[in-house]
Amino acid sequence: MKLWGGRFLKNSADELTRFSRSISFDTRLGPYETRVLGAWADELFAAGYLNDSEKKSIKSVLKTVEDEIIHGTFVPEDEDEDIHTAIERRVINEIGQTGGKLRLGRSRNDLVATDTRLLVMTELECIHELLLSLEKTILSKAKEVKDIIIPGHTHLQPAQPVLLSHVLLSFAWMLERDRKRITFARNRADSMPLGSGALAGTSIEIDRERLAHKLGFSELSENSVDAVSDRDFVSDALYALAMIMIHLSRIAEQFVLWYTEEFSTAKLDEEWCTGSSIMPQKKNPDIPELVRGKSGRVIGDLVSILVLMKGLPFAYNRDMQEDKERLFDAIDTASSSVSVMKKVIEATNFDKESATRVLRRGYICATDLADYLAKKGVDFSTAHELVGEIVKYCESERKQFESLTIPELKKFSELFEDDALLALDPHACVEARKARGGTAPDEVERQIGQLEKNLVDIEGPVC
Amino acid sequence: MKLWGGRFLKNSADELTRFSRSISFDTRLGPYETRVLGAWADELFAAGYLNDSEKKSIKSVLKTVEDEIIHGTFVPEDEDEDIHTAIERRVINEIGQTGGKLRLGRSRNDLVATDTRLLVMTELECIHELLLSLEKTILSKAKEVKDIIIPGHTHLQPAQPVLLSHVLLSFAWMLERDRKRITFARNRADSMPLGSGALAGTSIEIDRERLAHKLGFSELSENSVDAVSDRDFVSDALYALAMIMIHLSRIAEQFVLWYTEEFSTAKLDEEWCTGSSIMPQKKNPDIPELVRGKSGRVIGDLVSILVLMKGLPFAYNRDMQEDKERLFDAIDTASSSVSVMKKVIEATNFDKESATRVLRRGYICATDLADYLAKKGVDFSTAHELVGEIVKYCESERKQFESLTIPELKKFSELFEDDALLALDPHACVEARKARGGTAPDEVERQIGQLEKNLVDIEGPVC
Amino acid sequence: MKLWGGRFLKNSADELTRFSRSISFDTRLGPYETRVLGAWADELFAAGYLNDSEKKSIKSVLKTVEDEIIHGTFVPEDEDEDIHTAIERRVINEIGQTGGKLRLGRSRNDLVATDTRLLVMTELECIHELLLSLEKTILSKAKEVKDIIIPGHTHLQPAQPVLLSHVLLSFAWMLERDRKRITFARNRADSMPLGSGALAGTSIEIDRERLAHKLGFSELSENSVDAVSDRDFVSDALYALAMIMIHLSRIAEQFVLWYTEEFSTAKLDEEWCTGSSIMPQKKNPDIPELVRGKSGRVIGDLVSILVLMKGLPFAYNRDMQEDKERLFDAIDTASSSVSVMKKVIEATNFDKESATRVLRRGYICATDLADYLAKKGVDFSTAHELVGEIVKYCESERKQFESLTIPELKKFSELFEDDALLALDPHACVEARKARGGTAPDEVERQIGQLEKNLVDIEGPVC
Amino acid sequence: MKLWGGRFLKNSADELTRFSRSISFDTRLGPYETRVLGAWADELFAAGYLNDSEKKSIKSVLKTVEDEIIHGTFVPEDEDEDIHTAIERRVINEIGQTGGKLRLGRSRNDLVATDTRLLVMTELECIHELLLSLEKTILSKAKEVKDIIIPGHTHLQPAQPVLLSHVLLSFAWMLERDRKRITFARNRADSMPLGSGALAGTSIEIDRERLAHKLGFSELSENSVDAVSDRDFVSDALYALAMIMIHLSRIAEQFVLWYTEEFSTAKLDEEWCTGSSIMPQKKNPDIPELVRGKSGRVIGDLVSILVLMKGLPFAYNRDMQEDKERLFDAIDTASSSVSVMKKVIEATNFDKESATRVLRRGYICATDLADYLAKKGVDFSTAHELVGEIVKYCESERKQFESLTIPELKKFSELFEDDALLALDPHACVEARKARGGTAPDEVERQIGQLEKNLVDIEGPVC
Repeated sequence: MKLWGGRFLKNSADELTRFSRSISFDTRLGPYETRVLGAWADELFAAGYLNDSEKKSIKSVLKTVEDEIIHGTFVPEDEDEDIHTAIERRVINEIGQTGGKLRLGRSRNDLVATDTRLLVMTELECIHELLLSLEKTILSKAKEVKDIIIPGHTHLQPAQPVLLSHVLLSFAWMLERDRKRITFARNRADSMPLGSGALAGTSIEIDRERLAHKLGFSELSENSVDAVSDRDFVSDALYALAMIMIHLSRIAEQFVLWYTEEFSTAKLDEEWCTGSSIMPQKKNPDIPELVRGKSGRVIGDLVSILVLMKGLPFAYNRDMQEDKERLFDAIDTASSSVSVMKKVIEATNFDKESATRVLRRGYICATDLADYLAKKGVDFSTAHELVGEIVKYCESERKQFESLTIPELKKFSELFEDDALLALDPHACVEARKARGGTAPDEVERQIGQLEKNLVDIEGPVC
Repeated sequence: MKLWGGRFLKNSADELTRFSRSISFDTRLGPYETRVLGAWADELFAAGYLNDSEKKSIKSVLKTVEDEIIHGTFVPEDEDEDIHTAIERRVINEIGQTGGKLRLGRSRNDLVATDTRLLVMTELECIHELLLSLEKTILSKAKEVKDIIIPGHTHLQPAQPVLLSHVLLSFAWMLERDRKRITFARNRADSMPLGSGALAGTSIEIDRERLAHKLGFSELSENSVDAVSDRDFVSDALYALAMIMIHLSRIAEQFVLWYTEEFSTAKLDEEWCTGSSIMPQKKNPDIPELVRGKSGRVIGDLVSILVLMKGLPFAYNRDMQEDKERLFDAIDTASSSVSVMKKVIEATNFDKESATRVLRRGYICATDLADYLAKKGVDFSTAHELVGEIVKYCESERKQFESLTIPELKKFSELFEDDALLALDPHACVEARKARGGTAPDEVERQIGQLEKNLVDIEGPVC
Repeated sequence: MKLWGGRFLKNSADELTRFSRSISFDTRLGPYETRVLGAWADELFAAGYLNDSEKKSIKSVLKTVEDEIIHGTFVPEDEDEDIHTAIERRVINEIGQTGGKLRLGRSRNDLVATDTRLLVMTELECIHELLLSLEKTILSKAKEVKDIIIPGHTHLQPAQPVLLSHVLLSFAWMLERDRKRITFARNRADSMPLGSGALAGTSIEIDRERLAHKLGFSELSENSVDAVSDRDFVSDALYALAMIMIHLSRIAEQFVLWYTEEFSTAKLDEEWCTGSSIMPQKKNPDIPELVRGKSGRVIGDLVSILVLMKGLPFAYNRDMQEDKERLFDAIDTASSSVSVMKKVIEATNFDKESATRVLRRGYICATDLADYLAKKGVDFSTAHELVGEIVKYCESERKQFESLTIPELKKFSELFEDDALLALDPHACVEARKARGGTAPDEVERQIGQLEKNLVDIEGPVC
Repeated sequence: MKLWGGRFLKNSADELTRFSRSISFDTRLGPYETRVLGAWADELFAAGYLNDSEKKSIKSVLKTVEDEIIHGTFVPEDEDEDIHTAIERRVINEIGQTGGKLRLGRSRNDLVATDTRLLVMTELECIHELLLSLEKTILSKAKEVKDIIIPGHTHLQPAQPVLLSHVLLSFAWMLERDRKRITFARNRADSMPLGSGALAGTSIEIDRERLAHKLGFSELSENSVDAVSDRDFVSDALYALAMIMIHLSRIAEQFVLWYTEEFSTAKLDEEWCTGSSIMPQKKNPDIPELVRGKSGRVIGDLVSILVLMKGLPFAYNRDMQEDKERLFDAIDTASSSVSVMKKVIEATNFDKESATRVLRRGYICATDLADYLAKKGVDFSTAHELVGEIVKYCESERKQFESLTIPELKKFSELFEDDALLALDPHACVEARKARGGTAPDEVERQIGQLEKNLVDIEGPVC
């Protein structure tokens, strides 16, 4: 079935139908569409275009269709070009030509935009839930490993000692921003285009505010041309999802490094590893690798929609049908990636001994030695130079900081006193970073409290 | 000058210096950096690491440097690898080694993040202003052309008559969303990383809340590792800017079409056209074309930063230096594009006669004929078919709707009465679309009022 | 079934399996895999690891599986994680543990790379065929409309008269470059990785040259680490496909413009139009719009793979599994887009009368008037100025060039003689552009001959 | 100066001029433009539009301008909108209005395409040279470290022992493909558009073949519309450059990993490290990190041009001016990145002892133990299982393979004999992989010979 054709002398070419048909993917809009059509029937009834029994029979068949779609038993016919057609055909099949009244005053242009917005709102709410859940897992893991100090890296080189918990919490803060972006994107979708018709608005006397309220929208589109031309909300969703994936790719990279024999900071539980068809000893962290790779996928999805919209004149153009598959793909990829990363983190066991092994290398407390001097009045620029000289000396003597003696230090500055060596204890270095947001245990504890507060009060929808 | 080197036995290779030097572009951070360093000096003073005279002399030279940078007279030396180095060198040159105290407790990692965030906040506020200004221009133009009805297009084919004002206003509503995105992105930048040191926090007893307040930040970073690893705020800015450019590309495309001989809907004032080196008759709308092309540029900038961050482990990695040139490019491109599009729209004159010429073609009021029948009780699906038949009839008779007679119409349905022809008047079609957001003149008037309210109350910063 | 597990104490988590399973899409590699495994069995036989009856029974079941896959009757089991596993399981099911011998000396890493390369070679050969076919259609259409002169545009403004054929042929020349890119990409895939094992090569005494020859590869990979780490051939294919889509998007845009009421240069046959659910009069060119939109999709696919590979260390990483869905999507999108654009062009009818309508506007022969003066010795820069003055005069007098008189012209330059008006005939303008590649009819004829020669000699594979 | 304006009543708006002016970047085309104009003057002379003295004086001033541009002394005037204008103005300033004759028969559209193609040809030839040079460095380094066996990784987990040389050579093979892509892209640029005029061709009787030959082009554009509409050669160059950057990002990632304390496979010479402003001990590998980051930059450049061209109708549109800055940026980024990576590799010292340290962990020879059984007739699938069991046993006993005894092995299979332990020697594992392309020393030697042959015969242009 097609929703047009009266003016046509010829049938569509088969290849056209195959190429432009969207029902293979837009069935996913079905449960939103039936809700929308039900609310539309109410408005047509209110405006006098449907009588009570027409309305009831329409709503009843819509309910049946919705159930079928949700249970996967709805079967479109070959000639249904999209889900809108399939549903209208079905309604007419069931209740006769009266079903055709449901098409009055609206167009597929405003309908598809409405359906897709409802889907985006729902799906992003679910992803918000999943993010919360992932953050909670990170928080638990951070609490578990509070006593582990690891070498903090910059440029992947030993930088300063940090609490492992502090590093893990940094991932939660990334995700806190993702929650903001997801919420922002969800709210951008929350504006009802229904009633914009093909582009000019509708001549039916409906109450769009009432309609919006019934469908769960907080706002209305204010301009019918814009309403059918706009896919910003798809881009906004894709951008928020792409950022999640970039964050997950960074977390994944970190865990993949931690799992290496060379770092040996952590081990991934076997349940979450895969093996090799050729190398019998293998336990590979495929899941974080896949997640890392899938960041490319969602960035690609975002690029697709940006390119798609670039340079399109107003109002609806068929190019815009291409938004849906990329949107669905990004939603599914991000949802499942957030989900599995939660499991991966749960399944990761940190090994205190190996994790701290490298702390004794790399002069990782050098900054604290410079701070020591600076706190005695040496300007930091000079203190930095001096400690640099000490590092050079250690390298030439092939010794690490921990074997330095006070007399050796004094050769570089008379300001070094007996307590200087204390500065070189990683615990002291960590303790010292007490300013808000620093790695000192008390500060990390404060952070945990803060995050718990952020996470606990939220009561999200059930996904 | 370099801010490191104590531990090094050899000098840097010249090619390394050339390749990694950022001073050619990061001087743009200078005026923010001097502000930040001034505030840092206050904190060092408060914590007892600077005495009053040290603080004063440092702040005095920072002021001088700031003025020089703003006036373009600040000259970095060849060996300054970045603006941070150049400023510290200059401070030490002026007031001696005391200047080196200013480096205590912080790192370039937290400093550059702080500078860049301040820059993003300022620049996005300016772009917000420019958007407002562009919207006001659109609004004025929409008021100017209130009496013009043009053929509204979907698929670039005649669809339904709409008010030209309505179409112009649809562009303003796009930009309303851009303002939201820009504000969101600005607020994401508004979190102070200073005090995070290299990655672990600082051991200096500073009051980060006071510092943030002094620098104009509303929030603090809560985790020092995250604070130096994070460039989300750059992505957020680039995404918001890319969306502006996509909108401008669509508006540009629309105007380019309107300027064609074939559409002849509008003319661009000569002042805003360019000519050809070979074709003496040419007046080309180069500016909107360039804007359309520049959308690719900013999308590319966004992709660059997304790729850059993908898969980076914590914390700072030098890859992140690559964020700045793309950010600056996108800011400058979007700012100037918004600016010139305002001028282009001001310089566009709509020609009522040509603009309405095509209204008489394309059976553009067919929907209203179907609505006519539907309002008499025909289900819309059947009404649509019937009007399709009428179109087919007109095509075969080579006539437009306006020459149809009632008897001809009655051949298709007895429900057509004398008033049927009224439905075919574009004015009536436009008038009929009264539901909120529709193209009816009263609705468009309401929209104008709404937009004026949105725009007028805002008092932005001076850019 | 999994091809690993001996060393594992625990089973895989269900969610891991779902997330990492690739059989939903990699079944498409099946028919290549069975060919590859058959050839591998021959090598194992030659090296003495299989006896004749083992080899035969293995090859027989591989043949069965291949047939099943091709006919869509092959059903993987739930626990098969990928097509490699599914095939090995099936072989062992049919002939017992002997089937396990087939895994000797190779890994999924080299196997999947080999399969995918064979697929790319085959699919790109098919797309090459489709491009040829599209070019032939363009050529036919160009021959059909040889007598139509249209206004050539730059900046969408009237520039100079050109033969419509000349414009159509410009599309064929774009596609000529696409054929080169497709051939280049196909040849990049044509290098056999099989025998590289997991990454280090194989310890089995196989003859890789013989194997390559049997499988239809012209070259061998020369380094086993590179062989399993490399996905350049996927990028190369995606880039070539993205360029095809960009070209199609440009052609599509041109046709969409030509179909507008305003241009009315061409009409698309009804069979290839779609209608509207609300506007009964509509005939929309959805197919070229979709093709234009799908350019975003394939550009996104390309970006995905570029992001995916960025920063991956050697050798195989699981991220690389993400290459396949994007590759398949791009192949299918480009193939079907080339196919439908051929039909769209066939179904396009140019209307000589409307197409030439605008020729009389826009002073489109101004360049020839300047050339006229230049050929009489006026420097072109001055001639250009003078004709600019004439245009200005016409505008102020509201006349087109064709109503200019010789005395009027003489007011601008005494060099204008009676033949000057001839320069203003579009036919003469077109005729004058005789230099190679110009729009003069003889040159266009030469071009047609050249293209026919390019296209006719090629005998491609049957797709 | 502008090359148009005769028909204009008003001057351009200042902001238009600023926004559209390209001279800040297109001066880079200058030296190509002067060559092209010189050759054009010859053709105008041959066709009788210039006399001998006019030609000579024009060519003389072009030579002067070329020298000035090359030496950086050419100063455009404020009103020159682009380099074409600046050069024409200068010619006319020097020799009077005769200089205006040089504009006859061509347009900026064909001129800029010709200039840019010449630039691409030259720059890509230079990058080809740089790639050769980088490959030679890799080859030398590979020869230097022939005796080092390292753990080969897949999924960053220990996989099989490989020669370090073999891994290094894998990078050279990547670059071999880059050379092919660069050559392909260079050849795509090698087609002369000059003589295509604005879009329709030229009416001047020039010999385009002679002109092409003089300018160093091997081919001519065959269709004038295509010639001015086409920027494929820019995309092709950007794609080839993006692939180089992706390869460099992967090599960079590998070296950054090797430089970590945890891997300690290699050290980067101090000359090529940078330090930290806060942490005195730091030696960071900033250069490979920057290169890795810059891959995003060039991918972004590629995306920009793809987006830019998407959906542009024929022929020249001003959007296309946006191609140049991205092209120049990508050329400069890729050139300098190839250059510095050569230096980084030269400055890298591999440490045999640390590099081989991990070889004793990770059961890295497990595949060879399975091969051992398979060569005794066990099907590989079973052999793989059995060795998996042995790994499990070792894990539970906390022992590595090297401490296994024959009696222990015999518990798993009676087929293990005294020589089984030999299979567990990394040297033997490496030696065994003798099939072409494997890591066996003789095969690596063969590879070196092959690469030397590939590299040595090439005599490139001087850059």
